[in-house]
Amino acid sequence: MLIVMQKDASQEQVDKVVSIIRANGWDAKPIPGGERTAIGVLRNDRPVDPGLFLDLPGVKEAIPVSKPYKLVSREMHPDNTQIPFGNGDVVIGNGRLHLIAGPCAIESESQAIKTAIKVKEAGATFFRGGAFKPRTSPYSFQGLGEEGLKILKKVKDETGLFIVTEAIDVDTVDLVEEYADVIQIGTRNMQNYALLRRAGRAKKPVLLKRGMWATVDEFLMAAEYIMSEGNDAVILCERGIRTFTKHSRNTLDLNAIPFLQRETHLPICVDPSHAAGRRYQVTPLAKAASVMNIDALLIEVHIQPEMALSDGPQSLTPEEFATLCKELRDMQIPVGTG
Amino acid sequence: MLIVMQKDASQEQVDKVVSIIRANGWDAKPIPGGERTAIGVLRNDRPVDPGLFLDLPGVKEAIPVSKPYKLVSREMHPDNTQIPFGNGDVVIGNGRLHLIAGPCAIESESQAIKTAIKVKEAGATFFRGGAFKPRTSPYSFQGLGEEGLKILKKVKDETGLFIVTEAIDVDTVDLVEEYADVIQIGTRNMQNYALLRRAGRAKKPVLLKRGMWATVDEFLMAAEYIMSEGNDAVILCERGIRTFTKHSRNTLDLNAIPFLQRETHLPICVDPSHAAGRRYQVTPLAKAASVMNIDALLIEVHIQPEMALSDGPQSLTPEEFATLCKELRDMQIPVGTG
Amino acid sequence: MLIVMQKDASQEQVDKVVSIIRANGWDAKPIPGGERTAIGVLRNDRPVDPGLFLDLPGVKEAIPVSKPYKLVSREMHPDNTQIPFGNGDVVIGNGRLHLIAGPCAIESESQAIKTAIKVKEAGATFFRGGAFKPRTSPYSFQGLGEEGLKILKKVKDETGLFIVTEAIDVDTVDLVEEYADVIQIGTRNMQNYALLRRAGRAKKPVLLKRGMWATVDEFLMAAEYIMSEGNDAVILCERGIRTFTKHSRNTLDLNAIPFLQRETHLPICVDPSHAAGRRYQVTPLAKAASVMNIDALLIEVHIQPEMALSDGPQSLTPEEFATLCKELRDMQIPVGTG
Amino acid sequence: MLIVMQKDASQEQVDKVVSIIRANGWDAKPIPGGERTAIGVLRNDRPVDPGLFLDLPGVKEAIPVSKPYKLVSREMHPDNTQIPFGNGDVVIGNGRLHLIAGPCAIESESQAIKTAIKVKEAGATFFRGGAFKPRTSPYSFQGLGEEGLKILKKVKDETGLFIVTEAIDVDTVDLVEEYADVIQIGTRNMQNYALLRRAGRAKKPVLLKRGMWATVDEFLMAAEYIMSEGNDAVILCERGIRTFTKHSRNTLDLNAIPFLQRETHLPICVDPSHAAGRRYQVTPLAKAASVMNIDALLIEVHIQPEMALSDGPQSLTPEEFATLCKELRDMQIPVGTG
Repeated sequence: MLIVMQKDASQEQVDKVVSIIRANGWDAKPIPGGERTAIGVLRNDRPVDPGLFLDLPGVKEAIPVSKPYKLVSREMHPDNTQIPFGNGDVVIGNGRLHLIAGPCAIESESQAIKTAIKVKEAGATFFRGGAFKPRTSPYSFQGLGEEGLKILKKVKDETGLFIVTEAIDVDTVDLVEEYADVIQIGTRNMQNYALLRRAGRAKKPVLLKRGMWATVDEFLMAAEYIMSEGNDAVILCERGIRTFTKHSRNTLDLNAIPFLQRETHLPICVDPSHAAGRRYQVTPLAKAASVMNIDALLIEVHIQPEMALSDGPQSLTPEEFATLCKELRDMQIPVGTG
Repeated sequence: MLIVMQKDASQEQVDKVVSIIRANGWDAKPIPGGERTAIGVLRNDRPVDPGLFLDLPGVKEAIPVSKPYKLVSREMHPDNTQIPFGNGDVVIGNGRLHLIAGPCAIESESQAIKTAIKVKEAGATFFRGGAFKPRTSPYSFQGLGEEGLKILKKVKDETGLFIVTEAIDVDTVDLVEEYADVIQIGTRNMQNYALLRRAGRAKKPVLLKRGMWATVDEFLMAAEYIMSEGNDAVILCERGIRTFTKHSRNTLDLNAIPFLQRETHLPICVDPSHAAGRRYQVTPLAKAASVMNIDALLIEVHIQPEMALSDGPQSLTPEEFATLCKELRDMQIPVGTG
Repeated sequence: MLIVMQKDASQEQVDKVVSIIRANGWDAKPIPGGERTAIGVLRNDRPVDPGLFLDLPGVKEAIPVSKPYKLVSREMHPDNTQIPFGNGDVVIGNGRLHLIAGPCAIESESQAIKTAIKVKEAGATFFRGGAFKPRTSPYSFQGLGEEGLKILKKVKDETGLFIVTEAIDVDTVDLVEEYADVIQIGTRNMQNYALLRRAGRAKKPVLLKRGMWATVDEFLMAAEYIMSEGNDAVILCERGIRTFTKHSRNTLDLNAIPFLQRETHLPICVDPSHAAGRRYQVTPLAKAASVMNIDALLIEVHIQPEMALSDGPQSLTPEEFATLCKELRDMQIPVGTG
Repeated sequence: MLIVMQKDASQEQVDKVVSIIRANGWDAKPIPGGERTAIGVLRNDRPVDPGLFLDLPGVKEAIPVSKPYKLVSREMHPDNTQIPFGNGDVVIGNGRLHLIAGPCAIESESQAIKTAIKVKEAGATFFRGGAFKPRTSPYSFQGLGEEGLKILKKVKDETGLFIVTEAIDVDTVDLVEEYADVIQIGTRNMQNYALLRRAGRAKKPVLLKRGMWATVDEFLMAAEYIMSEGNDAVILCERGIRTFTKHSRNTLDLNAIPFLQRETHLPICVDPSHAAGRRYQVTPLAKAASVMNIDALLIEVHIQPEMALSDGPQSLTPEEFATLCKELRDMQIPVGTG
């Protein structure tokens, strides 16, 4: 249920609505807008009767919300969410396309900084690299841990790139929140609800990757978990779904982009690297996604893909990444801060 | 096995290689190239020994072909296939993007001609419309049959658009071949081998849609069936695969495009309308595909989508189609004949 | 719409209902039952108003049928369809489990007859073997054609086994109809509507395999195509669907069995051989399916699986097949004619 | 690499092999067997040279292990793992079929105890019920938490049933470990590596559900995570995979059962309730799975399915569950302790 107030509704009238919602044992989420305030009813265990509110002073409408998701819904929040970084020059969600680039895993300071300098030169505004790696095998390289985070901090200090890195469980959120500008939640953790809730209490924006098995409704519900804890800065990242095909690791679901743009106000990122799993598919898919008015592209870049400790076969070289950036600009895509 | 002749090999030397291949009970397919001739060995029931050919005069190399497909393979035919239409002004496969537009089903002459005039104005070079419709239910509208083909002929006469229409079985190929410029084979028929073979003996190019369940290898093998009967003019059409998602009818597999461009010399078409099944997804997906160097886009257009006898919900209006065409040109995509 | 007549309704009253249906341009399908007659309304292009019939003499009820399928629906035909063979000792659909066994492809008379003798001894009532093989590659063995059918005829003469073999296109139905007891339609042809219609006019029962990509609704609609042409003897065969897994060729969808048993009156066959693609999975899956009250099992058996011209890796040896039959009997499954 | 010792190898010889493995920076896992000891080499970052071990006294063979999983592999541990409960009368993995039954969520003491009494009477040896529920929506009932665990403890005290309940994150493992006999890890958490590792350090057996998107290799690798931390008591639970079908919530992958039985020594459970999502499919699928020599069936049972706070539509009533148990016994399946 969404209760829409009249334009001239007073704070007192808003408070009255909120108090009735709470008296029923539900949560109230006031959503201030340019012209008027709306109030979302959350955690209602039964359908809400509009009659409870329609006759209150200052109430214009009481709209049943049919979707299972609410806070993420464009119905409840018509304007695009914009997420500012640093002094506000960099904003995700304002119509520009930001490039988030870097290696799958941080392997050394030298590797990270060399790569960062290259991707910044080419046009990236964000650097991504994993310090904690969720790996299918317990015997694979699991990342450098906090040491990796310290390297990422240096990358930021030296290049000014904002840092995106993954938290793989509740404990690592504490660390990642301290060092990074954006907390990434990986595809395997999209329904790790303890992690989602913890990220919802973090002070940093969250880049949430779609589970490779998840419907878009489940994806939005995962974002709802984060927002329901108070963190409104969520970036949704499509990264490919699992299908029967064999020519790519996953299938990039670009049908989901217009769906998400219609259903939610949250910014959208596309990760062609993990969807492809093969280098030669990355650039064409990146270009395809970039004409769909998305807000960010996440591209794996490694200075020596053939030596990468993880996911080398899908990483672009810095030169290939620079070519991609140039091609995007030639296509009139508003890359980075311009 | 692919036998590559030396640059100065004589026709006699080529004939000798061919005769040895045939003496073994296999088929020989000479593939003339700019610089030299290569000869494919087909229908070999056992591995071919390169030693049979390497010492013959004029033979440069004998390359085992590891893929199950041969004639469709770029390995055997490095240059892109180009398919000319009419006086040769329109060529599919020469780097330009052709728009194939029209309604799912031909419903009446007036509907067809009105639509054709509109889509031509906007930029289409091909008109598509179904006269024979494969329908999931025996009780659904099955198309106007030959009457529909006659309408398509009139569309061509009045507008100059080339005609693409579907043949749904061996019998209808005879009719379609007579009236149309391109014979479409639908997704459900991708492994209807009798139909593929018949289309392989047709005098017209074939637009082959990928089975919604088919791997790209199976897709290429279906094209191989057509080519193995002598028809080299095959256009491959990606139209979405069946996945677990629910926000679209199928999932457009754009990962397949760079794969196909690497593996085959055949031109590539993308059909976002059937992949989406919902109008609002069509234009974004069409734009995404169009930056991948594809050769054609197939777009459903209906003058009154809400009244369409089939597939209305995914049809663009002529106005929406014109906007798409304009946007593609603004993106510097070389649409149509320019 | 299903119009249910009263118990004592006269033929004249039934005829009256039929004539009104036809006057509306629809088809009428009288369905005689033990106690009363019902009449199905088919090919209605718009919803049918029950009021048209409810006041006619002899009419008891007019039930809207919500499903897209009608003739195949248990709603319209509550009792199980039973398909008798030969002198009527063998019935598919009467509660017994029939084993349909034999090689993927008929390779020679000796191979066929040796196998047939073995599978009959073990408990099979039907022999299956392909004379026409739909193959992914145009260069693979395509079957012996009519020669294969003649061998199948000899198998029948020598062993008394009923013959199941595949028709791969409209033309081959003529031949298969002449030689075989059951016409098989393969998974790739499940939506080859010309073939389905032709099979619907055949005088022999049809074993229809589910498309590996097909929903159960599409599967039932394919059967509806056959029945809508007048052939009521259709056996539905679940043979695995395409999924993301890699440990088997396809995934046997046993969830579909109780669904089909609820929705349709047609007999149900399960083919674990093609679903598995690997021999060691066939026997466990066959046993699992056999406790679900199915009507037939289709099992590939080859006297020398390692030498088979197609699908060897999934064929049981005659000894393994005999063990399976024994195990089914030990499980109190009513195998064959008892 | 698996190093197999001779039958009469001394402890000293075993120790020598272990020390060499460790000197290389790898882990050594001695696996005592009935006749001889084998030693697994784990966490090797590069291929292991068999020559390192073959000439040592007491070494019989050094077998390269090709699979990514080791501890879970039958190659390394040929005999079936048996997991005893209580005084050892109940063993999972000894050839008997144990029934794990109960409601999706614990709702109240009365509901839990009533259900437990009924399922015990019918033949269950284990009671399952969720105290912590991972829910797609943050606004859905999330379980009673520790209060639910206390109820489960009472169920055990009153009925003697062993308790299976889910831990949804690292923190809840502490609690679940204290109250339950088996720690369940749910499908969404199959690749929650922090949780897997914590479960690997628990003192209780773990029932690991397959991710609905996971290949069987990924499933085994998840079990490997648990075992690599020292917990050898892992029960693998197949519960359906996500496919394109719509007639069931997921598709039960019974092809996986013979695969797992060949590849791993761990006991196998099948959960038809979650795979089906619809009550009428549960009993047929349970019977089908039970003839595949599995070790346990997990069945949702609710005293009032229509009132259940979660997953009611797939729960059997106690009466339906009793009928299932009777049918399994009639099929000669060795249910429970006999």
